[in-house]
Amino acid sequence: MRILALESSAVAASACVQEDGKILSEFYMNTKQTHSQTLLPMAKTALDYAGLAVKDMDLLAVSAGPGSFTGVRIGVACIKGLAFPNNKSCCGVSTLEAMAMNLRGQQALVCAVMDARCGQVYNALFLTGEDRVQRLTEDRALSIEELTAELPAWIQGREIPLVLAGDGARLCFESPYFAGISCRMAPEHLRMQRASGVAEAARQLFLAGHGVISAERLAPIYLRLPQAQRELKKRLAQQEKQQS
Amino acid sequence: MRILALESSAVAASACVQEDGKILSEFYMNTKQTHSQTLLPMAKTALDYAGLAVKDMDLLAVSAGPGSFTGVRIGVACIKGLAFPNNKSCCGVSTLEAMAMNLRGQQALVCAVMDARCGQVYNALFLTGEDRVQRLTEDRALSIEELTAELPAWIQGREIPLVLAGDGARLCFESPYFAGISCRMAPEHLRMQRASGVAEAARQLFLAGHGVISAERLAPIYLRLPQAQRELKKRLAQQEKQQS
Repeated sequence: MRILALESSAVAASACVQEDGKILSEFYMNTKQTHSQTLLPMAKTALDYAGLAVKDMDLLAVSAGPGSFTGVRIGVACIKGLAFPNNKSCCGVSTLEAMAMNLRGQQALVCAVMDARCGQVYNALFLTGEDRVQRLTEDRALSIEELTAELPAWIQGREIPLVLAGDGARLCFESPYFAGISCRMAPEHLRMQRASGVAEAARQLFLAGHGVISAERLAPIYLRLPQAQRELKKRLAQQEKQQS
Repeated sequence: MRILALESSAVAASACVQEDGKILSEFYMNTKQTHSQTLLPMAKTALDYAGLAVKDMDLLAVSAGPGSFTGVRIGVACIKGLAFPNNKSCCGVSTLEAMAMNLRGQQALVCAVMDARCGQVYNALFLTGEDRVQRLTEDRALSIEELTAELPAWIQGREIPLVLAGDGARLCFESPYFAGISCRMAPEHLRMQRASGVAEAARQLFLAGHGVISAERLAPIYLRLPQAQRELKKRLAQQEKQQS
């Protein structure tokens, strides 16, 4: 089974071609270059070096959120654009789950965190083992204070390290709320979400018999309204208040 | 500190640009394409996507062996060719050490193994921890039987998993000699040597104040004579015997 996976939910971006769980090619970058300019060429390069084309893929996967509104939209739009003319099935994967996939192979309580701005992080908790990732919580947006309030209950009785992954790992690690919590950051090469993690999450979803949808149904998964809509909502509420 | 690293010691190949321990770009492929055709374009692509050129690098690193004779020679020749006109310092890294770098972040006894053919594996043992890799043995060529004979002494008293990495991981894992040894294979995305591991090994060597050499002095590190030379030696010895 062949999967083309794209990941562009934050500053890093990547493209991966996977065959039956084996990475044939992966192209990862973590600079401030614009995903709208780099993602499709990266996908093309990953396919070219694997000696394959979109038509050879069985599934097109993408991290569908949470993440940067623009970044997620670029990834989802790219996959939709590649899937439609080729009539391919799609799979939208949780960015946080793709991140946890990096840490499989070790026993850990993985705290996947992305900086969601406005005093919040996008987060989900996972247990990783030899070759599996078990989800403990839903993806959610919460404050670091709220996250640290519930962590002790998850840690208790588990003699495994708490590992912070994602672009919010350092933010949490250095936050005073984390001062009393024994944890470490995932090593640099495993810290950020990657297309290979997206591909593996999609493969496991497919093997479990769910997650595969049409290009038409593929949509970004935002945990919050975009900032523009939040501000509009706030302004409308204020206007309503003033008028009443 | 910026490093361009190349890895082409076996079937997989990769190129990475690292800055102060952070991966700016990495391009990895694991197909049967010829390294002599793909490695330089991969290096160029990795540099382009990082928005950098060879002249911006502080160090050019390569896995100098052990590995496929041709593969290692291609990697070393590429780095020499890039270093000479740009007057850059080089660093030749052990392929097995680069492989162990993938596993940093978890507590493990890492058995890095490459299929050396002729009934042998290239091997070295490492202890990995939060952000370090500690070498336990030199790089050597030995039989799987010899390797398994010494493993129990390394395992004893260590309550950490034994993890097999490298293209010889499956060969060992499925070998009858490993039947009585509790071990697991590194997960697929961390099993093969990668240029990011080469870059990190080179960075740590540089920070420890050694390993940096001129392009002129950079040379492949073969643990055995190439097959052609082994056969020539054998033939010459036979001729000598017949003549005496």
